[in-house]
Amino acid sequence: MKQISILGSTGSIGTNALRVVEANPEHFSVRYLTAGKNAERLIEQARKFHPKVVAIADETLANEVHNELRPLHIEVLSGKTGINDLAAATDVDLVLNAIVGSAGLEPSYNALKAGKNIALSNKESLVMAGELINRLLIEKNLKIFPVDSEHSAIWQCIVGEDNKNIRRIILTGSGGPFRTFPIEQFDHITPEQALKHPTWNMGKKITIDSATMMNKGLEIIEAHYLFGVAPENIEVVIHPQSIVHSMVEFIDGSIKAQMGLPDMKLPIQYALGYPERLPVVWENTDFMKIRELTFEAPDFAKFPSLKLAYNALQRGGTAPAILNVVNEYAVYAFLENKIRFIDIPRFVEDALTDLSIVDNPELGDILEVEQSGREFVERKVR
Amino acid sequence: MKQISILGSTGSIGTNALRVVEANPEHFSVRYLTAGKNAERLIEQARKFHPKVVAIADETLANEVHNELRPLHIEVLSGKTGINDLAAATDVDLVLNAIVGSAGLEPSYNALKAGKNIALSNKESLVMAGELINRLLIEKNLKIFPVDSEHSAIWQCIVGEDNKNIRRIILTGSGGPFRTFPIEQFDHITPEQALKHPTWNMGKKITIDSATMMNKGLEIIEAHYLFGVAPENIEVVIHPQSIVHSMVEFIDGSIKAQMGLPDMKLPIQYALGYPERLPVVWENTDFMKIRELTFEAPDFAKFPSLKLAYNALQRGGTAPAILNVVNEYAVYAFLENKIRFIDIPRFVEDALTDLSIVDNPELGDILEVEQSGREFVERKVR
Repeated sequence: MKQISILGSTGSIGTNALRVVEANPEHFSVRYLTAGKNAERLIEQARKFHPKVVAIADETLANEVHNELRPLHIEVLSGKTGINDLAAATDVDLVLNAIVGSAGLEPSYNALKAGKNIALSNKESLVMAGELINRLLIEKNLKIFPVDSEHSAIWQCIVGEDNKNIRRIILTGSGGPFRTFPIEQFDHITPEQALKHPTWNMGKKITIDSATMMNKGLEIIEAHYLFGVAPENIEVVIHPQSIVHSMVEFIDGSIKAQMGLPDMKLPIQYALGYPERLPVVWENTDFMKIRELTFEAPDFAKFPSLKLAYNALQRGGTAPAILNVVNEYAVYAFLENKIRFIDIPRFVEDALTDLSIVDNPELGDILEVEQSGREFVERKVR
Repeated sequence: MKQISILGSTGSIGTNALRVVEANPEHFSVRYLTAGKNAERLIEQARKFHPKVVAIADETLANEVHNELRPLHIEVLSGKTGINDLAAATDVDLVLNAIVGSAGLEPSYNALKAGKNIALSNKESLVMAGELINRLLIEKNLKIFPVDSEHSAIWQCIVGEDNKNIRRIILTGSGGPFRTFPIEQFDHITPEQALKHPTWNMGKKITIDSATMMNKGLEIIEAHYLFGVAPENIEVVIHPQSIVHSMVEFIDGSIKAQMGLPDMKLPIQYALGYPERLPVVWENTDFMKIRELTFEAPDFAKFPSLKLAYNALQRGGTAPAILNVVNEYAVYAFLENKIRFIDIPRFVEDALTDLSIVDNPELGDILEVEQSGREFVERKVR
């Protein structure tokens, strides 16, 4: 029985993770849950899964949660400190970090500092602080188990193989809702249009990132830090059906792919269950029904975010953190109709030129980027 | 440096294996070569690779080979005994059995008896004597490394996984040259038509087997004995592009596939090099060029061989051996224009009804099938 913490339990990944826990009651027990501001769902989850303690980031909701959970003797923490304290709890076997955006970085860092392996859905942790986190992993002899469908696919393909035998990573992406949309109309794209993802049902932030393809850009950076593969050996291939979740080519030219219908519960279950595969099947993949898998090159003109991500990764230092934070706040501004769709990558490009990049950053430098990046977007939006 | 024997060195697989050896001179050295009746090519190969001894099955050619190789101090054996003696040589690290057809069974058996791991291209060994060979493998603590592209794919997909976690094997097949050919015209198919395989360049016997889809049938049986998966969990999917070489579904519904352009040198190199992957790339797979992979159900009406193979495997005993031998001699009769294309599976079906099936066969029982099966076909052809 694994004792697990779920950070960000009320989001799309967190909710799916609790379904995985529910389906495997003999394997997992939930010890801690944390949420951002969805008090109602957190209370509901706590009633069902009986964690020892929960935390909610929004301090104004702490009282409500506390009152509801007192009869169940579930302790309630709040604020950033509450989240970080639970992330650092040592009486768990595994921490699932499913927090959305740059707010997930410190909890990842704290969990690792506390000596805990992480099942990582919060790709921002690695995008912003890949070098720092990799140093921690070595120092503490810990592991990160990726939850992203692409990185889970890569991980599954290299189980039993030698990482030094990887020749190329082929990251697949659906291409999002604007793959075949005319480039001339990109400046009229609305949040409603961008929120309609063709294959994956996900949270808002990641759905917009899929529409700009910055999500694939972040995944390139994440793959680099997870698997130690050079940026030029990470290739993006558009695969609209989202069946092939990613591929690995080895030094002899052999390619391995992991496939399945798009459902995040499989990679979540794999990460939580590892090194065991658990016999709960979420989707039955039938190739007679799928019939066709297609592949095409990504359009770098339509989706400048991809190139920005490669460039930021090549530049190193705090450049990937700047890319991530500015993108994140630009996405929120777009969702609030304050800027256009095409402004998102433009903001990122400008920030990578205007903001100063720090080499070999420590956690403090990266947290400063979190602030300067947010302020950069606020200034541009005003 | 691995010392290897190549049994059947002048055929399609043998020739490709020698290219692999040539490309990896620091990894492999050829100690023994054997051929059926292609004396000229055997002599040429011996001059190039300097084996210690060669053997040729056709006794009438032994003198010619001997005369040509005497100046190089290469010993020459001949006949079935010569082949079996070299198969049983103990001063090698690995035996590649690339003999075509049922003639490959005894050499496989002898190599295992001598305590040698086998890289197996001769699927007939396992089809005819799967139970017997698997007992030998356990008894002697030996391994078979599959060379067939499909079984190599499955093997690569389960490296680092637990065999008991396999839920389903998905064997892919191109469907051969008659996939879209009208069933009404099947009785007019000529050897010339059947020898034109759309994706793979192979020897004659296996090319005809691909046209009848008996090749896929033999592969079902081979997969069963190699990976211990029940017949009902081995599924055949038609995939005309021959890029996905086969897939494995695990108990959590996750599917892994191995892919690449069709070239036998990759699976040969993987089997010879295992557990190392060697950095020689034979084909660069570019998904931007491939663009499309398609899948469809096999047509059991057009290709009755598939069902016959499932039935023979379910029946067990010498049934798969009968299927294999009768098919083999029927294919030769078809190649000599003595019977029609559609007679091949009919002969097999009749033999499975007419010939007596022995349970728990020993080697002698199986070698008797070799004779009774051949005689069965001779009687029907006459």
